Amino acid sequence: MAGVGLGTASRALNGSPSVAPATRARVLAVAEKYHYVISPDASRLARGTTGRIGLVVPHMSRWFFGTMVEALESVFRRAHIDVLLYHVGDRRDRQEFFQRLPARRKVDALVVVGFPVEEAERQRLELLDVQVVAAGGQHAVYPHVSIDDYQAGAQAVGHLVSLGHRTIAMIEAVDPDQSPSPPARSAAYYSALEHAAIPVDPQLVVRVDWGGEQGAEAMGRLLSVKKRPTSVYAHSDEVALGAIRTIRRAGLRVPEDISVVGIDDHPLAGLTDLTTVRQPVWDQGRRAAELVLALLEGKPADSSIVLPTWLVVRSTTAPPATVD
Amino acid sequence: MAGVGLGTASRALNGSPSVAPATRARVLAVAEKYHYVISPDASRLARGTTGRIGLVVPHMSRWFFGTMVEALESVFRRAHIDVLLYHVGDRRDRQEFFQRLPARRKVDALVVVGFPVEEAERQRLELLDVQVVAAGGQHAVYPHVSIDDYQAGAQAVGHLVSLGHRTIAMIEAVDPDQSPSPPARSAAYYSALEHAAIPVDPQLVVRVDWGGEQGAEAMGRLLSVKKRPTSVYAHSDEVALGAIRTIRRAGLRVPEDISVVGIDDHPLAGLTDLTTVRQPVWDQGRRAAELVLALLEGKPADSSIVLPTWLVVRSTTAPPATVD
Repeated sequence: MAGVGLGTASRALNGSPSVAPATRARVLAVAEKYHYVISPDASRLARGTTGRIGLVVPHMSRWFFGTMVEALESVFRRAHIDVLLYHVGDRRDRQEFFQRLPARRKVDALVVVGFPVEEAERQRLELLDVQVVAAGGQHAVYPHVSIDDYQAGAQAVGHLVSLGHRTIAMIEAVDPDQSPSPPARSAAYYSALEHAAIPVDPQLVVRVDWGGEQGAEAMGRLLSVKKRPTSVYAHSDEVALGAIRTIRRAGLRVPEDISVVGIDDHPLAGLTDLTTVRQPVWDQGRRAAELVLALLEGKPADSSIVLPTWLVVRSTTAPPATVD
Repeated sequence: MAGVGLGTASRALNGSPSVAPATRARVLAVAEKYHYVISPDASRLARGTTGRIGLVVPHMSRWFFGTMVEALESVFRRAHIDVLLYHVGDRRDRQEFFQRLPARRKVDALVVVGFPVEEAERQRLELLDVQVVAAGGQHAVYPHVSIDDYQAGAQAVGHLVSLGHRTIAMIEAVDPDQSPSPPARSAAYYSALEHAAIPVDPQLVVRVDWGGEQGAEAMGRLLSVKKRPTSVYAHSDEVALGAIRTIRRAGLRVPEDISVVGIDDHPLAGLTDLTTVRQPVWDQGRRAAELVLALLEGKPADSSIVLPTWLVVRSTTAPPATVD
């Protein structure tokens, strides 16, 4: 309709300088008249990229993962890249994802959010033949952005030790559908105790599935121990909040009778005055997205980014009432 | 390599019955040998669908929206449909989404999650020329799944009235980047008071931006009122938890001095023993996804699904200490 060939029309629509301005104007006028829209799929296919990045995310409904996704999406959106979401909630979902690989040939890169990829899964992902980046987890095999879980644990337990606590319990949280919580959070506990010459009492270490209700249950077990702990280190804020509920229901006070510290700085930690170790979640997502873009563009990039954590002291920790 | 033409190879790979079994086996053997994978984009393009559904979501990091997305994705995944995620966090994001319409020609349908679409936005969405469904909001113009916000509010305020409260405050939560919280949650307050012959005291109604910290601030304002309320109805659990922090910091007890009720049944409401009105969030997402699939398949479907809410009584509400 513009009196030009298909090739010229295509180049005109794509803004190629090889088309004379007058010709380009004529093509654009026709395109506008007929509400012509370039098919994004067709033009991406012709260029050999998909214009999409896949996110593989467990537990979308949890603050940590939701914040990660929000941060990743905000960076990709500004680069006009679409985000495909693959949720791997439980073990069955996860197996199905790695079996079926629904992202195959649909994405230019994949971001694995907050869970360690097992070796068999890593081999499956190789079939995608795209860049993989890990956000918010410990993934030696992929370029990744995370916190130092050992450091975070050391900050939490160190705080209790420095307040004078000698009877320090730990609630380890395990994701039943994924892998255990970072072992480094537990390792930090044992070395902090050793460093302070506090003997480890195995009765004071309880391992439960991740979650607030499970934290509440774990605390019940800790209150059944003969020598009651004066303080509790929980692997996450939600677990810590569950523990606090049990302490209060047992008629004990936080922090007067038992101090509690978590890890995360969940938004509700501020609202519930919980002492915790803050991890920058949004920043981990943002930096991971920037790392993906740099790698896709072949730019040099630091492929192991570790962001700092720090102690946030609120009202759930205090020196023990009686030092034993 | 299989000694057949391109058309035959394509029909063989797609399982067409017009290809002889022996020929098909030969084509498949070659395809397997060379790890040939059908390009999902190319084959979808040929069929005229994208195989993708877009979700437009504000506030991914909040439990309500994350849960919605998780539920929607789980239904679409089982139907082998990919999910494209568009986050519209603040007003600028939102304007940009409706201006640029990045989902154009990339999706078969769009789900608007948890925010009312304005008229100008609705007109923009028409350009996508795809089915739009609303999940978790009040959207007269689109097929939708939601709760009855008036009923939820009536259940919360009715609970306080039935406990004997006569001085009932309300904290209205407004999303500064989106629209006000459903006016029905406020309307329910005014009619519950009228029904109980309790005069409205405008000083007992405080409107703040959505969030826990804002709830805490609102409660500070309510504690400055001469006639202190004996109970507080908050438009959401997170706002209610903020209010409780302020009450406790002011040296008052919940529920002995002031009762507090929220709406949502956020997972942390259970952990913090908060009385609330439960809304089924996962179910709203699941039902919305099923509605999308039914509409895409041209099946008859109820296009206005309202799910029930109910009171969950925990430990933050009790009869007032002294009835005035």
